[in-house]
Amino acid sequence: MQVELLAKLRSVNPVVMNISNFVTVQDVANGINAIGASPIMSEEIKEAAEMVQMSAAVVLNLGAFTDEALGHIRQTGLLANQLHKPLIVDPVAVGAVAYRKQTVADLFNVFHPDIIRGNAGEIAALADVAWQSKGVDAGEGHADPVAIVKKAAQKYQTIIVMTGETDYISDGKQVVTVENNTPLFQLHVGSGDMLSSIIGAFAGVTSDYFEAAQTAAVVFAVAGEQVADQLPTELPGTFAIKLLDQLHLVTPETVAAKGRIKQLEMD
Amino acid sequence: MQVELLAKLRSVNPVVMNISNFVTVQDVANGINAIGASPIMSEEIKEAAEMVQMSAAVVLNLGAFTDEALGHIRQTGLLANQLHKPLIVDPVAVGAVAYRKQTVADLFNVFHPDIIRGNAGEIAALADVAWQSKGVDAGEGHADPVAIVKKAAQKYQTIIVMTGETDYISDGKQVVTVENNTPLFQLHVGSGDMLSSIIGAFAGVTSDYFEAAQTAAVVFAVAGEQVADQLPTELPGTFAIKLLDQLHLVTPETVAAKGRIKQLEMD
Amino acid sequence: MQVELLAKLRSVNPVVMNISNFVTVQDVANGINAIGASPIMSEEIKEAAEMVQMSAAVVLNLGAFTDEALGHIRQTGLLANQLHKPLIVDPVAVGAVAYRKQTVADLFNVFHPDIIRGNAGEIAALADVAWQSKGVDAGEGHADPVAIVKKAAQKYQTIIVMTGETDYISDGKQVVTVENNTPLFQLHVGSGDMLSSIIGAFAGVTSDYFEAAQTAAVVFAVAGEQVADQLPTELPGTFAIKLLDQLHLVTPETVAAKGRIKQLEMD
Repeated sequence: MQVELLAKLRSVNPVVMNISNFVTVQDVANGINAIGASPIMSEEIKEAAEMVQMSAAVVLNLGAFTDEALGHIRQTGLLANQLHKPLIVDPVAVGAVAYRKQTVADLFNVFHPDIIRGNAGEIAALADVAWQSKGVDAGEGHADPVAIVKKAAQKYQTIIVMTGETDYISDGKQVVTVENNTPLFQLHVGSGDMLSSIIGAFAGVTSDYFEAAQTAAVVFAVAGEQVADQLPTELPGTFAIKLLDQLHLVTPETVAAKGRIKQLEMD
Repeated sequence: MQVELLAKLRSVNPVVMNISNFVTVQDVANGINAIGASPIMSEEIKEAAEMVQMSAAVVLNLGAFTDEALGHIRQTGLLANQLHKPLIVDPVAVGAVAYRKQTVADLFNVFHPDIIRGNAGEIAALADVAWQSKGVDAGEGHADPVAIVKKAAQKYQTIIVMTGETDYISDGKQVVTVENNTPLFQLHVGSGDMLSSIIGAFAGVTSDYFEAAQTAAVVFAVAGEQVADQLPTELPGTFAIKLLDQLHLVTPETVAAKGRIKQLEMD
Repeated sequence: MQVELLAKLRSVNPVVMNISNFVTVQDVANGINAIGASPIMSEEIKEAAEMVQMSAAVVLNLGAFTDEALGHIRQTGLLANQLHKPLIVDPVAVGAVAYRKQTVADLFNVFHPDIIRGNAGEIAALADVAWQSKGVDAGEGHADPVAIVKKAAQKYQTIIVMTGETDYISDGKQVVTVENNTPLFQLHVGSGDMLSSIIGAFAGVTSDYFEAAQTAAVVFAVAGEQVADQLPTELPGTFAIKLLDQLHLVTPETVAAKGRIKQLEMD
């Protein structure tokens, strides 16, 4: 983790382009804004080249795409690769819906994601590991999370961020865990979508995407934990609002002090 | 009302599929989550069969559809019928816009809704009772609400939930009223949409849709009333957030104690 | 400014039709509701004539349109002109994306906007004044804001509302400034979209659009300032919620007392 990336992000204010999930798009835009970046969303392929060009990072959320939107998604991913913009992909429900898994496989033949963020059900599906996903939720499985993230990272030659009670982040060789968490993330729809776009904001200010992914995960988890600590009980509505507040307020010092991140020893 | 359905819902955590209104979709997803179910949204017909199959209930919100989306709506409704999943329809603004009324009539020739939820203007329009709707709001009319819900329920052979200052719920024979309410529901766009999807969550854990509809209406109204009681004045923004909190916190005991539900005597 | 328009708006409860930006649509709908009007959104051209007919004002937000949606936007704008409904246009990111600038130019050949609201980057682009926009944000420039709004208003024969630290409002002859503001408007995505639709609500209750624009700008800025004054620090999530509360609570008396509006002397 490079906690100074948070200060850099706020100083640079990178533009983050999103092809977004219509369910959570407003929350995601506000999250990008709150952390200190500048969101831009688009649904029109004719402006894709201009949009990617002006952006520091591109985030493709595959949470609710239509067949018709796939052309736009494909082109935007390809442009991100060609223009060397970090490309983050959030493969929502890819573990629960075969159509989505096939679509993502097809997309990954067209462009290369620099970072993929998903829950255990989604990452296990990408890694072809047995897992019982439940709709957009992680579901249940017994496979070793460390093995899953490594396998997925190796298969796609990318950085994997697998979020859950513990987050696992891997570049295919190393695996880092983040243990900050609150169950309230699960109770608020779109927490994961927001993190994916915030990863984009961090990747927009460094060329080390593994560090960007780790730092984003820790900053996000620490902010959520801070909010949860202030609540008298589980308040999912209040949590969502105060999370935006805290993303704006959280300091590098707090993240450094409270972040529970460690690098696992590998054989 | 079967208040124990609330505990069952939270234990089962049913997946509720929604073809949603883009205006209120995030709020609806969060409401489904807060009550204890799991939302999934889709706009793509190619995944409709998988989506319906994995869901315990299907909710079609007709709040902002395009002509192009109608194929998806039609297919999803039909699949819900064929796979015996409870199908809830929210016919937004059907009283104000002739195009929407015609479209809903066409849809109801294709599939059969198990439950319809709307405001007085919408249900009156479905029942062919004179009423002056106003945009997405209920508007004004002088017809007897009991007669309207019974007529609509009989015409469509379905359960009707007509929400307003008092909610009227009918299966075409019996009529039940729920008198819990707060004017803040009106001040927050999408309260009705959220209730429609929460009715889906309840219908996903029982085969008695009339009981599901009643229980959902009481739980929702009691939660809203509890929030309103805590506010110093009419605060529509704060209400929306605390409603999500309260949907998560409200207990069967509170609903049993505070619910003002009664079955009307019929001739 | 005619502060009594606020009371009139609340008494009339005008229906405001919006072709909206999917990123911020829920927030905008809630803002329209909170101020005392009634929002209706649509994406389907077949209902455009009915929708425009039933509405007191029409707002076209060009924040995330697709090529396919342009037919609907074009037709709705034209209908608003033909039916003499005030037409408000929000040209999002027109300064940052050449495709959007060209599209808006094409649209303005089809219909005439009665009021345009944008940030400095957007209005400068419309006025063909040099400016460095940044995505959806205003960006930076050195041109005289008074000259920009006058030039844009004259070029399009319309009312311009250019929002920022100071708002500048012009009919091409006179220029009025509103100095109420809070940096929190910038931290919440969609503040500008919400103001555009609230301008529509005011324009729906008077034929003097210049007064409508001024009054909406002052009411909105005073409400935001009131919320910011109550916050202990910059809380972007909390601000967005309390802004909805305050739009509902703010009184004509408060606006009259706190509004810092002045008419500039022109040569």
